[in-house]
Amino acid sequence: MTIYFVTSNKAKFEEAKKIAEEYSISIEWYNKKYIEIQGNSLEEIAKRSAKMLIGEINGKFFIEDSGLFIEALNGFPGPYSSYVFKTIGNDGILKLMKGVKNRKAYFMAVVAFYDGKDIKIFKGFVQGEISSEKRGEKGFGFDPIFLYKGRTFAEMGEEKNKVSHRRRALEQLFSYIAKFRE
Amino acid sequence: MTIYFVTSNKAKFEEAKKIAEEYSISIEWYNKKYIEIQGNSLEEIAKRSAKMLIGEINGKFFIEDSGLFIEALNGFPGPYSSYVFKTIGNDGILKLMKGVKNRKAYFMAVVAFYDGKDIKIFKGFVQGEISSEKRGEKGFGFDPIFLYKGRTFAEMGEEKNKVSHRRRALEQLFSYIAKFRE
Repeated sequence: MTIYFVTSNKAKFEEAKKIAEEYSISIEWYNKKYIEIQGNSLEEIAKRSAKMLIGEINGKFFIEDSGLFIEALNGFPGPYSSYVFKTIGNDGILKLMKGVKNRKAYFMAVVAFYDGKDIKIFKGFVQGEISSEKRGEKGFGFDPIFLYKGRTFAEMGEEKNKVSHRRRALEQLFSYIAKFRE
Repeated sequence: MTIYFVTSNKAKFEEAKKIAEEYSISIEWYNKKYIEIQGNSLEEIAKRSAKMLIGEINGKFFIEDSGLFIEALNGFPGPYSSYVFKTIGNDGILKLMKGVKNRKAYFMAVVAFYDGKDIKIFKGFVQGEISSEKRGEKGFGFDPIFLYKGRTFAEMGEEKNKVSHRRRALEQLFSYIAKFRE
């Protein structure tokens, strides 16, 4: 039974495919920019967006969405991280955090998996802090300002993928699938 | 033929009803928090969100969405104004605009109207500037930092409704409906 990862981002698919292989699971790429709905949380957004794909995709499938949540900013930029990155970017976040003592932040990834009957949600987190300036050249998005154990995600490069929120959410998903296969 | 305004905001409906009466149009309130999708522009969001309501509502209907677009911030907070207001608020916007010379901003309202066959889009704008501090107690959202001809929207109170982006978009809509009634 084919399991599709619905995403228009090839790099995301390749990363997920490698993690799936660790669980002897094979996944296929369903290249599509699907409709994302607005919502108060990533979980709600992923669940409702997946729901809208049922019927269109012939088989099991999952989607993934992630965001940066900054405690002192009430979770901003959260579900709208990609829009916020495109407009005010890392410099905007650093400006908002200027003089702010509480630098706590986390990345969260949410996977919504349709198993042919229901939608199940899997989450992955990585805790860190907002740095005081941009550091590092690797990665993308908010990676240069997200400090994890003394280095930013943009300084960690490939190492980031070992601890990332996305990996953790996907591990949850693939453990679940592997368990039901037995 | 009934025309519904789909919104969960009673005050918005009341405001629209008064404007409709100026065109001898009567509208009804359809109280619903509908699904809004994500998108790159308010127009796209309104159009696709209205599309998802077709079939559910028996008759003609419209929805309205609006946002604040700041030139120096690449249009931020734009389509996600309400989320941005809830998280970083007016203080966040003022902090982002600290030291920024170009203060130009506009409010835009978009109305998506389903006439029983197609969805039509009507837009209203009001040009202004981001103030250097909050002023005024009236209105809501970003009104205290939006300067229009020397006063903020929050200082203008009822007067704001005479020049507002929402009024302008609704006037476009009701002129259109009135024209087709003749």
